[in-house]
Amino acid sequence: MSTELKRPRIGIIGTGAIGGFYGVMLARAGFDVHFLLRSEFDAVRQDGLQIESAVYGDLLLKPVKAYNSAADMPPCDWLLVGAKSTGNVGLAPAIIQAAAPDAKVLVLQNGLAVEDNLREALPDSLHLLGGLCFISVYRSGPGKVVHQAFGRVNLGYHSGPVRSDEIRQSIVEQGAGLFHAAGLESEAMANLAQARWQKLVWNIPYNGLSTLLRATTTPLMSDPQTRALIQALMNEVVQGAQACGHELPAGYAQSLFAMTETMPDYRPSMYLDYQEQRPLELQAIYAEPLAAALQAGCDMVRVRMLHQALTFMDAGNH
Amino acid sequence: MSTELKRPRIGIIGTGAIGGFYGVMLARAGFDVHFLLRSEFDAVRQDGLQIESAVYGDLLLKPVKAYNSAADMPPCDWLLVGAKSTGNVGLAPAIIQAAAPDAKVLVLQNGLAVEDNLREALPDSLHLLGGLCFISVYRSGPGKVVHQAFGRVNLGYHSGPVRSDEIRQSIVEQGAGLFHAAGLESEAMANLAQARWQKLVWNIPYNGLSTLLRATTTPLMSDPQTRALIQALMNEVVQGAQACGHELPAGYAQSLFAMTETMPDYRPSMYLDYQEQRPLELQAIYAEPLAAALQAGCDMVRVRMLHQALTFMDAGNH
Repeated sequence: MSTELKRPRIGIIGTGAIGGFYGVMLARAGFDVHFLLRSEFDAVRQDGLQIESAVYGDLLLKPVKAYNSAADMPPCDWLLVGAKSTGNVGLAPAIIQAAAPDAKVLVLQNGLAVEDNLREALPDSLHLLGGLCFISVYRSGPGKVVHQAFGRVNLGYHSGPVRSDEIRQSIVEQGAGLFHAAGLESEAMANLAQARWQKLVWNIPYNGLSTLLRATTTPLMSDPQTRALIQALMNEVVQGAQACGHELPAGYAQSLFAMTETMPDYRPSMYLDYQEQRPLELQAIYAEPLAAALQAGCDMVRVRMLHQALTFMDAGNH
Repeated sequence: MSTELKRPRIGIIGTGAIGGFYGVMLARAGFDVHFLLRSEFDAVRQDGLQIESAVYGDLLLKPVKAYNSAADMPPCDWLLVGAKSTGNVGLAPAIIQAAAPDAKVLVLQNGLAVEDNLREALPDSLHLLGGLCFISVYRSGPGKVVHQAFGRVNLGYHSGPVRSDEIRQSIVEQGAGLFHAAGLESEAMANLAQARWQKLVWNIPYNGLSTLLRATTTPLMSDPQTRALIQALMNEVVQGAQACGHELPAGYAQSLFAMTETMPDYRPSMYLDYQEQRPLELQAIYAEPLAAALQAGCDMVRVRMLHQALTFMDAGNH
């Protein structure tokens, strides 16, 4: 079983904090992992990939099978996309070049509909899956990642050459098996859209408010006004999900709120993107959910206001 | 008529941008105006009060009848309070010392219920009025004020020793007459609470969003997302006013929005307070209207969210 799981060759498209962490964890578990890099190629080839983890200690992968062109990569059975959702369409050529026939492409991104544009640019023969990472991780320098807590990946099938729910589910379970083999929690979700909505219950309030208020999670969780606002935003997202036909587990928002109280202080990725003057992932995390909920008759008023404010900030930031 | 209007002696309590501008305009019109100052006393006694006005040109009042203690002021018939609403209770002793018997105290502040705490600290013999200033003005240095546009003061009676609506209205008109004599627009409002709500239709969106987004009015009016948000906030305030029994003139919000488009770029006072690390006037401009509207059955959801975000920012700012 274990040797069979280790057989697939894995390619990492976009080796930032997410791609770097999961790639190193998979390589450490014995998988053959190949990393596509751009600006950090030289640094990673020279110094390797370093993970400073509060859970696993200091991990160093060196040498790294690093590439600055997808054309040089061997055909990969699984491609993990860790780049920002703002650039998905542009990734298609690299994915196609690095993909084995019948490859599985797993998009490790937040938000709704992040696979849709990518799907149109991929051949029908490739399986497309989405993955939600429940993890506190950030890039601290070229080839350097700090892992603060968690690591779970929940994944689901988006689209591809097979129609059978049974086969699709077995592919998803195969994906979850990769992460299990690396010692990570992972769940095969029957419904990717619902999994994405569940993740949004966290991302919408914390990514947005941290950016808007230039604050990490601990101060946001310490002030009664922002606590109330986080809860109100979470409740709106739960209502949006319900309007779209996704009945989230009872007490789901409360459990995410409680989980965040136990977390070490965290700088959500959108706030980090804002500080580093990168485009914000507003389309996937705000615009798509707002449009989907509105079409289903639910106007997420606070989420819309947050999106409006963030759009203004983003426009002036790069 | 004109000489009779010039008879009242005027005291300015809190000589910032508002107190400085109106005090100089009234002195320029021939009124006997006395200015109470704190940190800027020395500068103003030495260099006078300077208004750099886009409408009236450069105005210099020198020498200034300046005081650093209200005990030294002669008894004033009208006292104009231009200080921040965050410090109203603390102003009562100075007001009492500078007030002639039967004096009129005019609070030139935004927001709701700004007179309530002050009223409790004043003797019953003093008339208390509220004034709303429609003006673009800011303090540029000690004793220096920049006046960009407008100047209208709308005022109404809050409370005092007379019950007769007719007498109250005549006192309000006497107040409006002071500003008319100084060449300024001014309207005697029959209903102070309604006048305050009308002013909030501007202050709630622009003061809050400019602070939240660190932006002056022109960029806020140039982005389609913030334009839509401003209009949504304005509509909520109009609904809040309606719930509290104030039917605002038809098209009132739209006219304020259109007026702001023609304004020179402006930094609302709350944004300026934030930048200079002064406490924000959140109680008067947000908390009081939110509570009043909620009690009347109207939950101003966006206004509440803005208030929550601003409270978080304010708490970390001084």
